[in-house]
Amino acid sequence: MNLILFHPDEISRPLPRQDPRAQHLLTVLRRRVGDTFDAGQTNGPRGKGTLLHLAPDHLQIRFDWEPAPPPPLDPLTLAIGLPRPQTARKILQEAAALGVQALHFVRTEKGEASYADSTLWHSGEWRRHLEHGTAQAFCTRLPALTHGNTLAGLLDTLPAPVHGIALDNYEAPGPLSKCHVIRDTRLFVFGPERGWSEGERELLRGRGLVFAHLGTRVLRLETAVVAAVAIFKAQRGAM
Amino acid sequence: MNLILFHPDEISRPLPRQDPRAQHLLTVLRRRVGDTFDAGQTNGPRGKGTLLHLAPDHLQIRFDWEPAPPPPLDPLTLAIGLPRPQTARKILQEAAALGVQALHFVRTEKGEASYADSTLWHSGEWRRHLEHGTAQAFCTRLPALTHGNTLAGLLDTLPAPVHGIALDNYEAPGPLSKCHVIRDTRLFVFGPERGWSEGERELLRGRGLVFAHLGTRVLRLETAVVAAVAIFKAQRGAM
Repeated sequence: MNLILFHPDEISRPLPRQDPRAQHLLTVLRRRVGDTFDAGQTNGPRGKGTLLHLAPDHLQIRFDWEPAPPPPLDPLTLAIGLPRPQTARKILQEAAALGVQALHFVRTEKGEASYADSTLWHSGEWRRHLEHGTAQAFCTRLPALTHGNTLAGLLDTLPAPVHGIALDNYEAPGPLSKCHVIRDTRLFVFGPERGWSEGERELLRGRGLVFAHLGTRVLRLETAVVAAVAIFKAQRGAM
Repeated sequence: MNLILFHPDEISRPLPRQDPRAQHLLTVLRRRVGDTFDAGQTNGPRGKGTLLHLAPDHLQIRFDWEPAPPPPLDPLTLAIGLPRPQTARKILQEAAALGVQALHFVRTEKGEASYADSTLWHSGEWRRHLEHGTAQAFCTRLPALTHGNTLAGLLDTLPAPVHGIALDNYEAPGPLSKCHVIRDTRLFVFGPERGWSEGERELLRGRGLVFAHLGTRVLRLETAVVAAVAIFKAQRGAM
């Protein structure tokens, strides 16, 4: 954790000593009374926290916030066929660290239906991974997230025309970097492990998405996500 | 594993039943006598294996190899300040999957010296991670690897002039994608967790390496490696 994130309504309250952030401050960062650390308000400013008082059951912290919030996230949305939870955890952290604006994990026809029922999604654990990636990047802005929508349902929520690219190793005419729409794209769509159904491919084409691949080597989904986002950011001179 | 790798001297011998590949074939891929699977010879051809006979202590396999070997690896070498072993494991797999030609894990002045003594390096465990990434990518070609050399020692082994880029968030004038030498580069150098020493930066500059960064967000080393390799491959139209 390169900074410690707090929700806005936690700022004025003492931090319970059993909170993982208190443990991190005291045992990993080894902060003592009077010491400072890098802090952030979720979707708000960055700043410094100062440890004012160490009570048996809580910590008192003073915050001094920078006037300007961190820079905005990249204008890129990812839609991803629901992967196995262990893969989703990695993607949540990586995509948040890279700074994408929104993440949508969608149900797909050939995807494993049980993945949508994971405690990752229903316990709210996903939020912890987004926060972890965001704090890693020294940022406070969390990507927006949905899970469990269908691909068609998600596409209906996006403003038309959709400037998007579907990453698909089977049907794509060329690599992502050569894709003529990459400069205008605002959406990358990644299929599930077993690929898209023919109906879903039709749907993507019908909504104007263009197909592209990431080369001839078979990559794990989390590697493909980082690679595609890096290529997007590089096209914009941001990486 | 998208294919199962065998060393050339294993091809003509039965596969012991307790070998992890035998277990994978029988219990994950659920192959029975007469079934085939995707196989590869380390640094050699790909092909099909056919399970001929299942003895109590070994498997007999027939191999049918494709005439042409898989395409060459990308002409990119990575030199990386020795990271904590858990990070190195991820990088070994990711870089092998992405298809870089060589990986050198170097000792650095500010790096944690004990990382070089990890069993990862001394038990040969590193090779398993390279094989895992290579098999993931449906390839047989393993990157070359060294570990424990110093940065200066490594640079001495590379043919001059070194067309390389040092990824450095502190001293770089601009992002990797805008770096004027990216099309000619054959080497990316990544610093250790605590960064380069001033002497190492001088050394890199003296050998003609150019500095570039990967944006303002602080990325984990394994994320930075995937991002930089993706940008390299995209510049060559390979991704």
